[in-house]
Amino acid sequence: MPVNKAAIIANGSFHVGGPVQGCLEQADFIICADGGAEHVLKLGIIPHVLLGDFDSISHRTREILRERGVEFVPFSPVKDKTDTELAVEYAVEAGAREIFLLGATGSRLDHTLANLYLLCRANLLGVKLSLVDRVNQVWLVEERITLQGSRGQYLSLLPLSPRVTGVTTRGLKYPLTGATLVWGSSWGISNEFLGGEAEVTLTGGQLLVIQIWEPPAQTK
Amino acid sequence: MPVNKAAIIANGSFHVGGPVQGCLEQADFIICADGGAEHVLKLGIIPHVLLGDFDSISHRTREILRERGVEFVPFSPVKDKTDTELAVEYAVEAGAREIFLLGATGSRLDHTLANLYLLCRANLLGVKLSLVDRVNQVWLVEERITLQGSRGQYLSLLPLSPRVTGVTTRGLKYPLTGATLVWGSSWGISNEFLGGEAEVTLTGGQLLVIQIWEPPAQTK
Repeated sequence: MPVNKAAIIANGSFHVGGPVQGCLEQADFIICADGGAEHVLKLGIIPHVLLGDFDSISHRTREILRERGVEFVPFSPVKDKTDTELAVEYAVEAGAREIFLLGATGSRLDHTLANLYLLCRANLLGVKLSLVDRVNQVWLVEERITLQGSRGQYLSLLPLSPRVTGVTTRGLKYPLTGATLVWGSSWGISNEFLGGEAEVTLTGGQLLVIQIWEPPAQTK
Repeated sequence: MPVNKAAIIANGSFHVGGPVQGCLEQADFIICADGGAEHVLKLGIIPHVLLGDFDSISHRTREILRERGVEFVPFSPVKDKTDTELAVEYAVEAGAREIFLLGATGSRLDHTLANLYLLCRANLLGVKLSLVDRVNQVWLVEERITLQGSRGQYLSLLPLSPRVTGVTTRGLKYPLTGATLVWGSSWGISNEFLGGEAEVTLTGGQLLVIQIWEPPAQTK
């Protein structure tokens, strides 16, 4: 079966909610980065691949996955890349055109940020990657993105590069036309979908586009 | 009384734990950005200043603060800057040389990232700002930083600018000497204090330095 949409489950916080369930349902290929396997087993999901140095996974989980014929892709714990980065490369080599990165946020900001930077890596590899948890879905946009959202749902635009130029939006409450966004500007925070499709285009730089899936009152 | 160390409490998640209590104790000036006042009132702390458009604070909290002589600094809800950015500017004008930014993380990644970018703003203003929650303390370093940590405690180095050059460390388990860190590299994640003082210097770019205050098992 050709791989089209892959879900990678990393070892951060994992709660099925917001867009997470939908991503799991859409994915035709599921890769667990090490301890991420514990997350999906609880949901009764058997991944296609378990990848990593297997230091964050129980003996029992390993046995269950082995019995169910899951492919094990071991890596040495002495490596320059995180399990999650290796999983992205593996998904791309398997043919994935779109990847959902789950379990990639949590209380440790260093891991969350390192996973956000994987969006750059995916762009270089030519695949569409989004980082997804129960509240946020994040894309890194260099040219154009179109998204679906309900009226009033938040969409935030944040420059990843120091300067993002020529930002133009369609379908958002506070429209931008050829705008420049810079580090530290909170201008692009909490824009809102008018409902239906929204489009964001830019001419220079790298823009984080963050769709918020929970109502504000629940996200504080 | 001259202001030296200020704590700003924003409206994100707030848990006293890790370094948060220490920051509150060190601060000689406490500014609440709007709803942040609800956080500190629960701790029996009366801030010096309440700043914002006051749309995230209860009538009762407002009354308590007014009775206790707290200075109110109102801003229009129609503004280009977040309450937190305004609070940073206010603290600097009051004379603060060091600022702890609390309540600045949470489930919404857009707000967390916008607050991280405030570290750039503080550098421009010439003050030492760190973003602090119960797990993480984050600084933005452009030249040098020295930090205290216990043996085995994690310290992660992540480039905020696309490329950070000349990174040299002292007092860390995995030493770097004149290293270059780039976006997407997870090389600098989970370095460890040898115990006592550690130093990180760099020659170019902007580096996020993240001290992890919880043992790994509790941070997933």
